[in-house]
Amino acid sequence: MIYSKRKLLTTFTLCGSLLALSGCGSTSNESAQKTVAQNSAPNNIIMVVADGMGPAFSTAYRNYVDDKNTPEVDAVVFDDILMGNASTYPAPVSGYVTDSAAAATALASGVKSYNGAIGVDVDKQPVKSVMHYAKLKGMRTGLAVTSQIVHATPAAYIAHNESRQNYNAIADDFFDVRVNGELVADVMLGGGTDFFEREDRNIIGEFIDAGYEYTDTYNRLATVPKGSNVLGLFAPVALPAMLDDSRDNRLKYLTEHAIKHLENDNGYFLLVEASQVDWAGHANDIASAMAEMQDLAYTIEFLKTYVQAHPDTLVILTADHSTGGLTIGARGDYSWSPEYLHNLKASLGTIAKNMVEHDNPGDYVATTFGFDVTDEEIATLDSIAQQDVKARFNALKVFLDNKTNTGWTTSGHTGVDVEVFAFGAGHDDFMGQIDNTDIAKKIFNFIDNRNTTAQGISTNVELIKATDKKDGTNASCDFKENWRCN
Amino acid sequence: MIYSKRKLLTTFTLCGSLLALSGCGSTSNESAQKTVAQNSAPNNIIMVVADGMGPAFSTAYRNYVDDKNTPEVDAVVFDDILMGNASTYPAPVSGYVTDSAAAATALASGVKSYNGAIGVDVDKQPVKSVMHYAKLKGMRTGLAVTSQIVHATPAAYIAHNESRQNYNAIADDFFDVRVNGELVADVMLGGGTDFFEREDRNIIGEFIDAGYEYTDTYNRLATVPKGSNVLGLFAPVALPAMLDDSRDNRLKYLTEHAIKHLENDNGYFLLVEASQVDWAGHANDIASAMAEMQDLAYTIEFLKTYVQAHPDTLVILTADHSTGGLTIGARGDYSWSPEYLHNLKASLGTIAKNMVEHDNPGDYVATTFGFDVTDEEIATLDSIAQQDVKARFNALKVFLDNKTNTGWTTSGHTGVDVEVFAFGAGHDDFMGQIDNTDIAKKIFNFIDNRNTTAQGISTNVELIKATDKKDGTNASCDFKENWRCN
Repeated sequence: MIYSKRKLLTTFTLCGSLLALSGCGSTSNESAQKTVAQNSAPNNIIMVVADGMGPAFSTAYRNYVDDKNTPEVDAVVFDDILMGNASTYPAPVSGYVTDSAAAATALASGVKSYNGAIGVDVDKQPVKSVMHYAKLKGMRTGLAVTSQIVHATPAAYIAHNESRQNYNAIADDFFDVRVNGELVADVMLGGGTDFFEREDRNIIGEFIDAGYEYTDTYNRLATVPKGSNVLGLFAPVALPAMLDDSRDNRLKYLTEHAIKHLENDNGYFLLVEASQVDWAGHANDIASAMAEMQDLAYTIEFLKTYVQAHPDTLVILTADHSTGGLTIGARGDYSWSPEYLHNLKASLGTIAKNMVEHDNPGDYVATTFGFDVTDEEIATLDSIAQQDVKARFNALKVFLDNKTNTGWTTSGHTGVDVEVFAFGAGHDDFMGQIDNTDIAKKIFNFIDNRNTTAQGISTNVELIKATDKKDGTNASCDFKENWRCN
Repeated sequence: MIYSKRKLLTTFTLCGSLLALSGCGSTSNESAQKTVAQNSAPNNIIMVVADGMGPAFSTAYRNYVDDKNTPEVDAVVFDDILMGNASTYPAPVSGYVTDSAAAATALASGVKSYNGAIGVDVDKQPVKSVMHYAKLKGMRTGLAVTSQIVHATPAAYIAHNESRQNYNAIADDFFDVRVNGELVADVMLGGGTDFFEREDRNIIGEFIDAGYEYTDTYNRLATVPKGSNVLGLFAPVALPAMLDDSRDNRLKYLTEHAIKHLENDNGYFLLVEASQVDWAGHANDIASAMAEMQDLAYTIEFLKTYVQAHPDTLVILTADHSTGGLTIGARGDYSWSPEYLHNLKASLGTIAKNMVEHDNPGDYVATTFGFDVTDEEIATLDSIAQQDVKARFNALKVFLDNKTNTGWTTSGHTGVDVEVFAFGAGHDDFMGQIDNTDIAKKIFNFIDNRNTTAQGISTNVELIKATDKKDGTNASCDFKENWRCN
């Protein structure tokens, strides 16, 4: 009795809203539940994955943007949308610590798989994603990410491959996997021309032939007519790190443009990924970690405004896992000093690469860091320039770790539960402790029960042939019972 | 509009409950709110602090008790009571990483202070705790902890001292600080005879003279008549580590007995602390960390059963901070192997101390660890025996860290937000992102608005002389506006 509150809350919140209007007077229990289900179901669903953003990243970001001259640490854009936590463990064969592929497959399809799996289960059989299902149900679909679009997280929403490393085959799937004959994603924004314009195949050309607008610059993206199908690949592989990018809000920009092309009466599903929080974690680079979090925060800020204007939209934000074993404070010292991270003019990778081109590398590094350093520190930074680029990067990283008192335990992932945030229609459904697979399962249900104004779309698909490839193979997928294809 | 849901949920959840009974038919908005306030306010409040339990500890515990032969990681006792997170930062003078004293003062009194502060603000002026206030409002009050009872967390609920290190002065305050002439706590269970039976003062004797039952054994505690005032000190300083204690559920046992003596019609406030999760974190000792979490889990399990029988009780569980920078997985390896921690027969401290008394220390360690080790590992463990006890402890710790692939970044605390759990009457009030000071503020409000059946207790105390000491000093305390005394 005590512990079943979440279901009650979901069911009766609307009674609260109705009550404010009508006193909840004539509403019976049964009809109240039905009304709730209709009204709280979103028409549009935006899934935001902050790759690698464990709990320490969001707390660190709050400290990073804090004004130290005020007594309180002010709330940030994530604070009023926290719903709870999600466990992230992969299939038992991979133990308790997931990689991004297994986690993406779980988030996309509701199925636990092995580390490395892209849209396949432990038997390497394809599983269907919420993006496939959204397309099947007549919604528009898209993704906006800062990695190459064939990287693990976006890949698992579209492709099926036994290994995340098979980037070319995954790129092939972006064109070849179909849902009732249609391409899976209407809008794809991120990096990756290397994988789509190859000697053996020009997939960009195939998308253009299929009626997609193609762009490789942010400026050209702005000129694409609203409502288009779009392939936008803005870098050979991933987008530049936030600290090196020409825009200081690249994910927000891509998200805004993706939505512009997806909006329609029958709703849309959009995957957004702050891909490079994870890469900063792998590199144990606290400067890039906070810069990538800032890019994410701008995106969530934009989405909050969007949802206020479009209350039939649900936004979910979570991480696939935590990366790097980041800790706020380390080495026995009870302090953390993010103020050293406020004015960096380039990423550590770029600084490490470029410093040797300067006569006084210590001065160049100090200027690019953007904070005062001592003569002794300048000498230390000068001496770093004698090393190879990997050692230079590591030395700069350690320099910033010591300045800020940041801790790390690994170049890989850790198994801590990640936070789940949500706002907009149906957000209450994500409260409390859940598993990453629950997120996909809830989205499947929302797609089934969305509050659409469009006509003529089947909403009772129990067992349907949903995936076919250009080569003629196809699969029957039971979306209702086990979210799998046979 | 989108982001104010928490208040709505609190207000209208009861409408859901009423609706289930009556269709929510004749309830007006205003009267519904009033009814909610009366019904959701607890009569009894149990505050559980798991000292040092950052998010990685609770996830690690779920993995630790997992049956690896089942495909899913099963839910644990904490999972269905997760409400959200709390920030833990101390007053600005101490930066972003709190110690247990500042955090305890925040949790007890709703006031940010400096690291080291026990029940005093940044100006070293006393602040009033929820335990003082509960006593003022006629509730019974108590604490049950596994540290010495004068340690930071319990101390901040009773004493006022500029430094947590002043254990004797804090012990003095346990008898000398009064609320309207009454002792602050009716029941105190934990460790610490060294601080209460001193050459300069016998505070145990003073408590006995004041009518308290005194006990220094678990068995004698069981014979104290229900409803007594009790001082139970079961060790010279702290209780033994969980892995060394004569009971395998010591905190649950103390909690159960504290409640037995506190129950009354006017309600009670009880502080429970799993004190030694923190100490395992400081020692970077994953075996004790999981054993102390198990002791906590038994306690929460007991409290869930208790709340089912006593639904007018609120239980809140949180941590004061995270300790050790624990990570599930480390050193680039995507694994964590808690199965090595299942059968330890003593704490690492005890093993490190005792191993030199054995002719074959490696065999002794292997037997006490309770898992198979190789001949090579036995030889390694034998060689450890040549070192001093501190080095032996460290070597054993590293041995287990490598076996389990556990990571740590510090012997101190880290700044990550901690989880907040709650169940029972009024638990909805703790949903989402809050600050540690909010927990005290919410408890103050619950004490003001509790659902008591007792008569004749003032519930409109605006400004009251609430604290006086035996030496004749006293203070006026404004509990309603700023929770402080002048």
